[in-house]
Amino acid sequence: MAGSSFGNIFRITTWGESHGKALGVVVDGVPAGLMLSENDIQALLDRRKPGQTSISTPRVEADQVEILSGVFEGRTTGTPISMIVRNTSQKSGDYSEIASYYRPGHADYTFDEKYGFRDYRGGGRSSGRETIGRVAAGAIASKILKSMGIDVYAYTTAIGEIAIDYDKFERANILALPTAMPDADANTKAMEYLQTARANCDSVGGIMECKVTGLPAGLGDTVFEKLDANLAKAIMSIGAVKAVEIGDGVKVATQYGSENNDAFYMDDDIVSKKTNHAGGILGGMSDGDDVIIRAYVKPTPSIFCPQQTVNRAHEDIEIQIKGRHDPIIVPRAVVVMESMTAITILDALLLNMTARLDKIQEFYKK
Amino acid sequence: MAGSSFGNIFRITTWGESHGKALGVVVDGVPAGLMLSENDIQALLDRRKPGQTSISTPRVEADQVEILSGVFEGRTTGTPISMIVRNTSQKSGDYSEIASYYRPGHADYTFDEKYGFRDYRGGGRSSGRETIGRVAAGAIASKILKSMGIDVYAYTTAIGEIAIDYDKFERANILALPTAMPDADANTKAMEYLQTARANCDSVGGIMECKVTGLPAGLGDTVFEKLDANLAKAIMSIGAVKAVEIGDGVKVATQYGSENNDAFYMDDDIVSKKTNHAGGILGGMSDGDDVIIRAYVKPTPSIFCPQQTVNRAHEDIEIQIKGRHDPIIVPRAVVVMESMTAITILDALLLNMTARLDKIQEFYKK
Amino acid sequence: MAGSSFGNIFRITTWGESHGKALGVVVDGVPAGLMLSENDIQALLDRRKPGQTSISTPRVEADQVEILSGVFEGRTTGTPISMIVRNTSQKSGDYSEIASYYRPGHADYTFDEKYGFRDYRGGGRSSGRETIGRVAAGAIASKILKSMGIDVYAYTTAIGEIAIDYDKFERANILALPTAMPDADANTKAMEYLQTARANCDSVGGIMECKVTGLPAGLGDTVFEKLDANLAKAIMSIGAVKAVEIGDGVKVATQYGSENNDAFYMDDDIVSKKTNHAGGILGGMSDGDDVIIRAYVKPTPSIFCPQQTVNRAHEDIEIQIKGRHDPIIVPRAVVVMESMTAITILDALLLNMTARLDKIQEFYKK
Amino acid sequence: MAGSSFGNIFRITTWGESHGKALGVVVDGVPAGLMLSENDIQALLDRRKPGQTSISTPRVEADQVEILSGVFEGRTTGTPISMIVRNTSQKSGDYSEIASYYRPGHADYTFDEKYGFRDYRGGGRSSGRETIGRVAAGAIASKILKSMGIDVYAYTTAIGEIAIDYDKFERANILALPTAMPDADANTKAMEYLQTARANCDSVGGIMECKVTGLPAGLGDTVFEKLDANLAKAIMSIGAVKAVEIGDGVKVATQYGSENNDAFYMDDDIVSKKTNHAGGILGGMSDGDDVIIRAYVKPTPSIFCPQQTVNRAHEDIEIQIKGRHDPIIVPRAVVVMESMTAITILDALLLNMTARLDKIQEFYKK
Repeated sequence: MAGSSFGNIFRITTWGESHGKALGVVVDGVPAGLMLSENDIQALLDRRKPGQTSISTPRVEADQVEILSGVFEGRTTGTPISMIVRNTSQKSGDYSEIASYYRPGHADYTFDEKYGFRDYRGGGRSSGRETIGRVAAGAIASKILKSMGIDVYAYTTAIGEIAIDYDKFERANILALPTAMPDADANTKAMEYLQTARANCDSVGGIMECKVTGLPAGLGDTVFEKLDANLAKAIMSIGAVKAVEIGDGVKVATQYGSENNDAFYMDDDIVSKKTNHAGGILGGMSDGDDVIIRAYVKPTPSIFCPQQTVNRAHEDIEIQIKGRHDPIIVPRAVVVMESMTAITILDALLLNMTARLDKIQEFYKK
Repeated sequence: MAGSSFGNIFRITTWGESHGKALGVVVDGVPAGLMLSENDIQALLDRRKPGQTSISTPRVEADQVEILSGVFEGRTTGTPISMIVRNTSQKSGDYSEIASYYRPGHADYTFDEKYGFRDYRGGGRSSGRETIGRVAAGAIASKILKSMGIDVYAYTTAIGEIAIDYDKFERANILALPTAMPDADANTKAMEYLQTARANCDSVGGIMECKVTGLPAGLGDTVFEKLDANLAKAIMSIGAVKAVEIGDGVKVATQYGSENNDAFYMDDDIVSKKTNHAGGILGGMSDGDDVIIRAYVKPTPSIFCPQQTVNRAHEDIEIQIKGRHDPIIVPRAVVVMESMTAITILDALLLNMTARLDKIQEFYKK
Repeated sequence: MAGSSFGNIFRITTWGESHGKALGVVVDGVPAGLMLSENDIQALLDRRKPGQTSISTPRVEADQVEILSGVFEGRTTGTPISMIVRNTSQKSGDYSEIASYYRPGHADYTFDEKYGFRDYRGGGRSSGRETIGRVAAGAIASKILKSMGIDVYAYTTAIGEIAIDYDKFERANILALPTAMPDADANTKAMEYLQTARANCDSVGGIMECKVTGLPAGLGDTVFEKLDANLAKAIMSIGAVKAVEIGDGVKVATQYGSENNDAFYMDDDIVSKKTNHAGGILGGMSDGDDVIIRAYVKPTPSIFCPQQTVNRAHEDIEIQIKGRHDPIIVPRAVVVMESMTAITILDALLLNMTARLDKIQEFYKK
Repeated sequence: MAGSSFGNIFRITTWGESHGKALGVVVDGVPAGLMLSENDIQALLDRRKPGQTSISTPRVEADQVEILSGVFEGRTTGTPISMIVRNTSQKSGDYSEIASYYRPGHADYTFDEKYGFRDYRGGGRSSGRETIGRVAAGAIASKILKSMGIDVYAYTTAIGEIAIDYDKFERANILALPTAMPDADANTKAMEYLQTARANCDSVGGIMECKVTGLPAGLGDTVFEKLDANLAKAIMSIGAVKAVEIGDGVKVATQYGSENNDAFYMDDDIVSKKTNHAGGILGGMSDGDDVIIRAYVKPTPSIFCPQQTVNRAHEDIEIQIKGRHDPIIVPRAVVVMESMTAITILDALLLNMTARLDKIQEFYKK
């Protein structure tokens, strides 16, 4: 099945395996006229690169992107933009053993059941490296949104038991600190927490959050293509995400209507809301307030303690995973969440242009 | 934008407004040869009908379904099945006032911003009545799945602070009790909780859960069309759902890898898992275990206490909503969750048939 | 497979069989704000109705359309428009015999091979009555296009050997004459030709043409979603069409480049072409000139002379078809071609709004 | 708009411009388990390569394909197959002049109107080089079809006035002769015809045909996704094609029903047809007979005689095109037609697996 594309008007198709020759993405439907260079892409790709901090795998990948099409004289032409990142640090030897068994928490077993066999090197298509294409495409979406005053940014809000304090939120910390937490104190504690987990041959989960500001009201749709429904799919499609919420999310289940409803009021001629329990989306459409999405990420399934499992010959065995693995997925996934959100939001923005007949008539008048 | 369709091979298109002439659905891609009658559909539709218990609106709607096409001599023909439910209990007079202002927690404002105006009668397209089409289509999907040994069922797990005790789980209670809780004691407490909320002119939120049993391993895809990603979209597209989780869901954020990983073992020649933290999905594909999805639903936004809001003339006003509204959305939404899950699962099952060349060759061999 | 939908932004889904309860269409993605009533739809539906002339089947169908959703206070709301036409003149008895064999030139055999059985009454889903939904949707597309100065109209150019003389083209004749030919003399000759064919228990083929005027340049796409590619699919999807051409069409095969190229020139500050061999489309995109499409339609396969065929028991037999059948398909198909063209053009127009970043930025600037 | 993808289950996305860094395709939905190497692809790519005969441009392009993903240990894995061909022979200098004006018969003007500017080097995205991606994908589709006994092959049937004699049809000639005509005598005459045209600074049109043998009955759909409708789109999306026909095509317009209907008969227990006017498709579905499609291709628009046109400053000018251009498009487009047909047929074959409930149940039975 053709499951490697996402989006309608702004549509991305990713390809590539962890230890294949290369990974990449084709981004179709990019509006013509955007100034775009490889630097725009590289900046985001560098945020997901391994080997940069003590909590990410020491594997060094250059992850250098090359734009192969769709840009002419520095501007997008409206034709598909193909981008490629060559793999340079594959050590296939490291992975030969796992070919024979199914790692708990991984896609090894399900992949074999679906396709009959799998590219077992480094997780193949199910590797975190698959997100290179998402981030490269997200960089384009984010740049377009930014040109229209729409800002999308994601960050870590919790690592295991350690959660950020919103009063200490400093946006610059997101890029500066290894945990991608905007709270420096929480970052320090989380780093210790991670060291302990690693010392125990274990890994931990966490929470990431994404905010979209500057969005016009009315984006999204009323039924299946609700903005929150598409965001939920976008974010749940990131490996290891097990829950997605909008605004107050899981808390709404124990709220009363009188608490959860956001009162409207006029703020200098602008329809505004006194609170934002809704997370910026009402009835599937943006309400003009900040959109807030949260994702709950499971611990890295590759842990170094002994585990029970079965092999391809269907025998019970005990394994001990080796290799290079982060003790936490979240900090490097934050830019993936940001990218998937930007892609989803931009697509909704483009689709929204055809909602009203009078605006269509005006567009084509002259 | 064309946002009223869902699914790929098994594809549904819903239409209709709360107070229009009728609501319905076209279900395309139904395999030929299924025995199908209006009774199959009506049984599920009756579960979402209003006016049946003390916690649902006293509005009486017959919600009688008529199959208009796609069935011949009692069997589906492979052509689209069009189903219609005529509206019979519209009292447009009740809703005339809300035409002038934006109800907090509703889609009134976002609808106006997107389309310039709205069918304000009973919420129009954003009404819960829109789900009639989803449930009618879900009845077909469920019947097909059942014929292949796959069982999909949803229920309420919490209403406000009142949660079920899984040790008291009795499946028959789901259909028998007004809260759709499988635990009779929890149902009793929840009913009291709801009476109190209603007495306070308020409403409450809750949690619903859906289970899929008997699923083969390997359904879904590795990247964007992950089974959990599509389930997340399906469930988040149900009005008032603000969070979706798979398996352990939000809890994974505070788990260690050694807790969260499900160990594989051989159970009588079948690859099995000792636990099911994953909720039956690994790497976006079903792992053969039960699929478990949970949805967090906000309180009914139509509450009867006074609320601050603005009107279409952009003035601050205070309103007091009248009419007929449930104090809780969950019990009637359970069958919608079940329907959307069945549709998503069936679509994945059909798409999965083309995964392997040897199976395709065998299929076409005479 | 879900094959009953067409279009991307403006998307239609048809349903219904010749002798089922009803036929209809759901039109999703209709921009909000269009004044629309059942009269707008009925006018086009009446052009495809049977029983109106000596060359169409004497079967009388009211074909009365009812709009069920998506219109409020006379205007489209942006939500799906569901339209239904009840069948009133089904005589299932007429068709009982054909259940047992495969009519030459019909879909009986292929339907059975695909689905295992078929609704054999009046051709079931493969009946010309399926086009009711297309025409109802086309009426909306045409009305929107007209509001923007874009005119779509189709007509018969040949019936068997009788072709129109373009010098005698009078547009009013299209609707006034039974053949839908714009040339009154050709109409007269064609009517005689048809009487002769009918007297011989036979049927004849013909050609229809559709013109689109007032189109802006640049609609369509450069690769797979070429405007001509989508028109080819749209028109070839009409039953009995066996060839589709754009502009000079089949003639280009014997032209030289110096003949076929249309020279550009400036006509009062407007880029224009001296000729229109291209039929208004260059490189898959509209060039500002009239778009011209032609369709070649096979003779009605239901003829009254004896024919050789096989039955469902796989025996060679001779049959003689009875019933009510037009000796020519073209005149009643003209409005279907017009409808499918309008739908395709409108969809391209809506999709084109996102081609340029500067126009998107302008659209969202307040 | 995202217009660079084609197909549903077997889905291709092409990218790249004539004079960009590279061109390529991502093929998603390839079933797992197909033995595949770069040689399989290169064989077809070599058939569309320039510089091989006296009637193709002397430009030499290596057109060497590299498979970047989706193949492991020689077999397809079910994940997307990304293929790339680096451009090596771009002489951008040759094209600098055409940046300033609109070549008649080309997409220069329409591209500028849609996107505001264009990559003018060698036609950019509208170059024939765009088909590299189609052919690379077609090679995979053809190999899969061949493994199931389905053969797809295309050839030239006419070049200008010179048509083949079917009695002299020798399949080996298709690949052996420069015109891709299966008739050696016609090839000789056509070559002379082309020399004369070229001597006159002119170009000529032609006809190509594609045949599919071994197809099971029932592929395709009854309404919009008719097999012939999808083939029409596939073939009309090839640059320079101006007409597409199935079976008798344009001739049906002057046939009687008694001529056009193909009588069924039993041929050794197999339902067969005495003739094949229908071209193997009835009611949008394959009927088990050979599928026959024909495409009418316009003359190469790049001719060397002086032409009238306008420039970007909107002035009337006279131009004389230089550079390297074939005097005929057809011989090199034949393999593109074959590829697009194979892709369309394979997609229909995969989609058809979900048509019947009993076959689905059997598929999933262990």
